[in-house]
Amino acid sequence: MSQLFEQLVPYLEKHMALQTALALLDWDDATLAPKEAGEYTAKVIGILSEEDFLCLTNPQVKKILEDYESKTEETKEQEETEQAIIRKIKKNLRKTEAIPKEEKRAYAELKSKSQKAWQRAKKENDFSIFAPYLKEVIAYCKKFASYGATEKLNGYDVLLDDYEEDFSVEVLDVFFEKLKAGILPLLRKIQKKPQIEDSFLYQKYDIEKQKEFNRFLAEYIGFDLNRGVIAESEHPFTTAWHNHDVRITTHYYEENLAGAIFSTIHESGHAIYEQGIADRYTQTVLGEGASCGIHESQSRLMENMIGRSRAFWVPIYGKLVETFPEQLGEVSLDQFVAAINRVRADEIRTEADELTYCLHIMVRYELEKLMINGEVEVEELSRLWKEKYQEYLGVVPENDTVGILQDVHWSMGDIGYFPSYALGNAFAAQIYAKMKSEIDVEAELSKGNIGAVREFLHRYVHQYGAFKEAREILKEATGEEFNPDYFVGYLTEKYEKLYGIS
Amino acid sequence: MSQLFEQLVPYLEKHMALQTALALLDWDDATLAPKEAGEYTAKVIGILSEEDFLCLTNPQVKKILEDYESKTEETKEQEETEQAIIRKIKKNLRKTEAIPKEEKRAYAELKSKSQKAWQRAKKENDFSIFAPYLKEVIAYCKKFASYGATEKLNGYDVLLDDYEEDFSVEVLDVFFEKLKAGILPLLRKIQKKPQIEDSFLYQKYDIEKQKEFNRFLAEYIGFDLNRGVIAESEHPFTTAWHNHDVRITTHYYEENLAGAIFSTIHESGHAIYEQGIADRYTQTVLGEGASCGIHESQSRLMENMIGRSRAFWVPIYGKLVETFPEQLGEVSLDQFVAAINRVRADEIRTEADELTYCLHIMVRYELEKLMINGEVEVEELSRLWKEKYQEYLGVVPENDTVGILQDVHWSMGDIGYFPSYALGNAFAAQIYAKMKSEIDVEAELSKGNIGAVREFLHRYVHQYGAFKEAREILKEATGEEFNPDYFVGYLTEKYEKLYGIS
Repeated sequence: MSQLFEQLVPYLEKHMALQTALALLDWDDATLAPKEAGEYTAKVIGILSEEDFLCLTNPQVKKILEDYESKTEETKEQEETEQAIIRKIKKNLRKTEAIPKEEKRAYAELKSKSQKAWQRAKKENDFSIFAPYLKEVIAYCKKFASYGATEKLNGYDVLLDDYEEDFSVEVLDVFFEKLKAGILPLLRKIQKKPQIEDSFLYQKYDIEKQKEFNRFLAEYIGFDLNRGVIAESEHPFTTAWHNHDVRITTHYYEENLAGAIFSTIHESGHAIYEQGIADRYTQTVLGEGASCGIHESQSRLMENMIGRSRAFWVPIYGKLVETFPEQLGEVSLDQFVAAINRVRADEIRTEADELTYCLHIMVRYELEKLMINGEVEVEELSRLWKEKYQEYLGVVPENDTVGILQDVHWSMGDIGYFPSYALGNAFAAQIYAKMKSEIDVEAELSKGNIGAVREFLHRYVHQYGAFKEAREILKEATGEEFNPDYFVGYLTEKYEKLYGIS
Repeated sequence: MSQLFEQLVPYLEKHMALQTALALLDWDDATLAPKEAGEYTAKVIGILSEEDFLCLTNPQVKKILEDYESKTEETKEQEETEQAIIRKIKKNLRKTEAIPKEEKRAYAELKSKSQKAWQRAKKENDFSIFAPYLKEVIAYCKKFASYGATEKLNGYDVLLDDYEEDFSVEVLDVFFEKLKAGILPLLRKIQKKPQIEDSFLYQKYDIEKQKEFNRFLAEYIGFDLNRGVIAESEHPFTTAWHNHDVRITTHYYEENLAGAIFSTIHESGHAIYEQGIADRYTQTVLGEGASCGIHESQSRLMENMIGRSRAFWVPIYGKLVETFPEQLGEVSLDQFVAAINRVRADEIRTEADELTYCLHIMVRYELEKLMINGEVEVEELSRLWKEKYQEYLGVVPENDTVGILQDVHWSMGDIGYFPSYALGNAFAAQIYAKMKSEIDVEAELSKGNIGAVREFLHRYVHQYGAFKEAREILKEATGEEFNPDYFVGYLTEKYEKLYGIS
């Protein structure tokens, strides 16, 4: 370790410890905390967040970073890890400091109110309750975007960059155009075909038995429960304190077998990424995913490319039937695999199938661009939402609760986040194509060796955490830059085959 | 708020937030954290603890405390709460600073190793594995006692004072002598009587049904689950972040109905104390129990005086029978109440009945005195333990695992803690006597109005948190100083009646 870096360590450790405590408070709130605790616990969260802010923006930290910069040439033999940490910290610092403290506090208050308004609006199916808050959130996002603007980036690009570096409107426009051109005609054809029978997935499935099977599934995928936890929450998610404590939640529905199964596979995809991060990066700022999109690629690849494939179920479908003999005794493996891949253009993003998922994202992406560019009034959003759903998915949401009010993101100020979900799918397809060129995935899965998949991902993605940047990881794993054609090709091939389209 | 106090607030808030985070990490570790997380999470705990230490010992804090002292006369109209906080902080600071930082760190490491050695020693039934660590722990405790010594206090008294202020060896010797004189002859008489039938408590009791009943029980006692959580852990305990988030754990045994029931009542007793602390004290240093002994008095009063009384079960025994008709259908209320009060002099403290419990504590108290006064070699402790168990309880532990190795406390450095358990019982009896003089407890319980008991406790104890000191609370609640005769009288009356001794 260089002497200069050593001076930085206490700050880095404090930052890590506070981040861990904050993550635990979040986890606890989502899984266990009593209903009325929120207001009091918020005070604790506020104080620890402020402490973290002060730690990162300490003048001493800045001085070390500056000195490090100027001394780099002299001592070029700095460790690579050290340099990656410095790079990451500088970026965090830049983003943290871009916004004046008072505005940050006012914005935090707004977001808290805005989320409550959103909840009420969704419950009462009344967009007008949420609209004034959304207007303010947008105004803040625009202002923050202007603070973070550089020669290269401005407006919506700045927000996008927060979640997925290097993926600007220019890249995303091309990406979504390709998706639109590939998916829309395919979806129209599928909609004219006979529907796949999947009603057996919606019988009554005992929750205790579901839990048992999902636990098996998580471990089968490679989620190490000596270093991990499975719990329940309203919306499934993954969180981690370090590579030896990674937690996922899932949500069980008594009358929907696939819901929990694919949440579990998805979150386990995130979890093995977190568990796979090398010891030398864990508990440093590099001990996290390379980007939102890369993280999502790992969960999506596991959920869709692997978890919905026939080969994945060959060795374990028998166990599922054994667990639910009454419900699945008469259902063949092929019927089951067809059912879990059924396309159903519907109004809810989180319930979308693999093919239509990105169309949901596209609606949000297009509306976000309009919002941040000031090309739409908040009052028009509900109407536009419905029009775009009609255009892309061929359904009109019955009301705003299942329409524009369905997602929490905007109420939390997460404008620019949605595209990483779609990018995750595309990254996954690109990585999967490379994987198939190196491994006979179908053969390995069929014989129960999912370890082959995991090892590939570990080699090219997991171990590095945030040591490498998203673009670098993608390039090294696949040998080329981001290329959305893989995703379009993958979807086309898969769904033409499933629905007998030629 | 005085201007001076206002300067202290940021430090107090940070201290509170860090303490909350540390409590959550502890809770999580006991209930949910994965097996292999410990070593990594310990790092987080270490950093946050250090941060808390630095916060409390900040020179600025000391300066404010000094200034506050010197200015008190000028502005005597300081708020009472403010003064209580200052008093508490000064005490915490004195205790925190008494020990040099390097020794504190070395001691923390020793305790961590010592606990591991204790676990192994207990598992392998080999005291010699633990003995060298215990020797070192004792040496540290002696040294720390010497640092904390004052004109009034020295040696073991300093350690006792950490857990129960004002309860020195002088007071405790009298207390335990009275207990010995009261309990031992009574126990001998009981041991000659026919044993109470209680085998029905040890049938097979479905754990899911137990959970349901215990949840009902906790709420019946007054534990508000909108501001609280019930979970499971190896050893039951209570923890709280503030009065709106209080958590208890219990432990279920399939073949022991009473185990979980009395853990739940006990912990709910602690929990309603924490939930009852007034809003103006919660999230300050006053937002906790007045002392270990007072806290224990609230759990013990609920568990024993209330929870093992016939009147308590009159309105709810029917529900228990309904939950377990096969096991309890033929068992009358009186049989049940007799069974849960059966005296069984045995070797394990945590399974002890109400009468013999304090004898277990007495053994530990006497050995601790010898250890800290340097009047015994660690090697002799196992033998002495057995002799004292023979003398007081009339049983000789079969081996060290169920003998001197049964408790975790000494391995954690908690020497001086055990007496507060016994004091808690005695405080409880004294408070209960006063309660009975004000309320017809039996009548209220019989008609299901346990709220009357809770309100009494809230009025005299709960609401104050640590705003008043233990002795003050006891005096105001009962009108007199600590008086162990109530406890001896209570036990004598109860058990003579139960066993038909005159």
